[in-house]
Amino acid sequence: MDEKVLLRLFLKELGEEDNDVSYVDGLAVKIDGFAESWAKLPFHTYADLGWRAVAATLSDLFVKFAVPKALLSSITAPDAQKAREVFDGIREAAAHFGVRYLGGDLNQGREVVVDVAAIGAVPVKIGRRPRAGHVLIAPPLFGYTGLAFVASREGERSPVVAKGIAWLKRPMLDWPKPPPPDCVSASMDSSDGVADVLWTMARGVDIILEKLPAPEEVISEALNLGVEPEEVVLNAGEEYLPIFAVDPRCVPEGYVAFAKVVEGEGKVYYKGEELKYRGWAYFR
Amino acid sequence: MDEKVLLRLFLKELGEEDNDVSYVDGLAVKIDGFAESWAKLPFHTYADLGWRAVAATLSDLFVKFAVPKALLSSITAPDAQKAREVFDGIREAAAHFGVRYLGGDLNQGREVVVDVAAIGAVPVKIGRRPRAGHVLIAPPLFGYTGLAFVASREGERSPVVAKGIAWLKRPMLDWPKPPPPDCVSASMDSSDGVADVLWTMARGVDIILEKLPAPEEVISEALNLGVEPEEVVLNAGEEYLPIFAVDPRCVPEGYVAFAKVVEGEGKVYYKGEELKYRGWAYFR
Repeated sequence: MDEKVLLRLFLKELGEEDNDVSYVDGLAVKIDGFAESWAKLPFHTYADLGWRAVAATLSDLFVKFAVPKALLSSITAPDAQKAREVFDGIREAAAHFGVRYLGGDLNQGREVVVDVAAIGAVPVKIGRRPRAGHVLIAPPLFGYTGLAFVASREGERSPVVAKGIAWLKRPMLDWPKPPPPDCVSASMDSSDGVADVLWTMARGVDIILEKLPAPEEVISEALNLGVEPEEVVLNAGEEYLPIFAVDPRCVPEGYVAFAKVVEGEGKVYYKGEELKYRGWAYFR
Repeated sequence: MDEKVLLRLFLKELGEEDNDVSYVDGLAVKIDGFAESWAKLPFHTYADLGWRAVAATLSDLFVKFAVPKALLSSITAPDAQKAREVFDGIREAAAHFGVRYLGGDLNQGREVVVDVAAIGAVPVKIGRRPRAGHVLIAPPLFGYTGLAFVASREGERSPVVAKGIAWLKRPMLDWPKPPPPDCVSASMDSSDGVADVLWTMARGVDIILEKLPAPEEVISEALNLGVEPEEVVLNAGEEYLPIFAVDPRCVPEGYVAFAKVVEGEGKVYYKGEELKYRGWAYFR
């Protein structure tokens, strides 16, 4: 059982909704984290891991229009120095995003594990099931992280790959202004790849992917590196970019409509066939 | 720098209070966790670790009179089976304590790490600095976990040690009814030992420990095993028992006054000397 299947099973057993945030008494709450062994790439510092955990958590809040009130962290580390570096990254990110950081727990362990929890105020509740007739929109900026996963070990790094590395080190969440919430039937941030978002949203509907939400320089760099653009754009993850299902009349500046939601039974199609990519999941 | 010193430094840098919970807009929030390599004893199952993380978090809320609204978890595990077991323990504990469990995050890592976050409603705010003239009270049940740390590896386990092992596996938080909040100047749960609580509370005051808050069977078992009763009662941890600083007229049924708070400059005394025990801290 992979991570996604297991998580859905857990939530079913708990009778809780499968969503990017949980709703409790007018609040949105979220916890997100990872372990060094799976998350730390050679270019990452421990402070980068702290920053990324904050960005990952806030990204989930922001895509639900939640306004963060505070962050808590639990830092596990083999020594005090690494714990200190993770803390610095969390603190820098909290300051950057303007969110109060309350501190949290500190523990010793074999490797660094960072967990960040956040609470936010919510004006609306938005799930993960889009309405048929809606379109999926996103900033057309996918693929940089995918290129960096593929090419970061090469000696010479192109500017496009370098952009992906910077993105993986310190995700900035500088999203264009989201659509009005009343246009939105579903939303998710992409942390495990566009393909994961598409398959997750395709429950009780089908989704037809019409184009890759990526800039031209990403496509040409992928071809240049000899990898499929679809792999890089759809299957990477850690973009922390928003994907909204909206009424087709509600596509704001900075977003492209790249897929449509139709009546169906849970499939994702691309170029007339079932999409072969699934995005990232642990335990697969 | 040990864990406690580092955590205090972090909180100072953040301008946040050093307390068992953080207060945000009428809520108490808390995150607590640990890694398998430091927390799992031979008798622990992974489900026990899940249970314990819940008990550790709720203990902090309860000692501040907070009423928990919900729990979130982040589970890191090397495989899906271990993740499943931790989840089961969290779910059982949440059900036992009657708190909604929202699910959370799931990640792969080298070892099991469990983090549990909770939010609660708070009628009052209580810190960690007791008033001079108050007494420290607690249920006189310390030492069982200390005995289990010392003796759990022996072949033959006495009933007293077995009680400590059960306590370390599934802390029950079956505290006697706490004092009225308006009697209380400070409170902490004991997760890192009575000695840690005493030294933490001794800021701007001195604390005089007058007796060990432990039952007779613990003292005699310690002597029987050839260990100092003070070591077992004061220096163990994971009791998840409450310690309240209260007006001496407010000692409820089930609690004993075991120390007094006097004017001073941050020392803890026992039998006329500075207390040599400090409780548990990582990175020491």
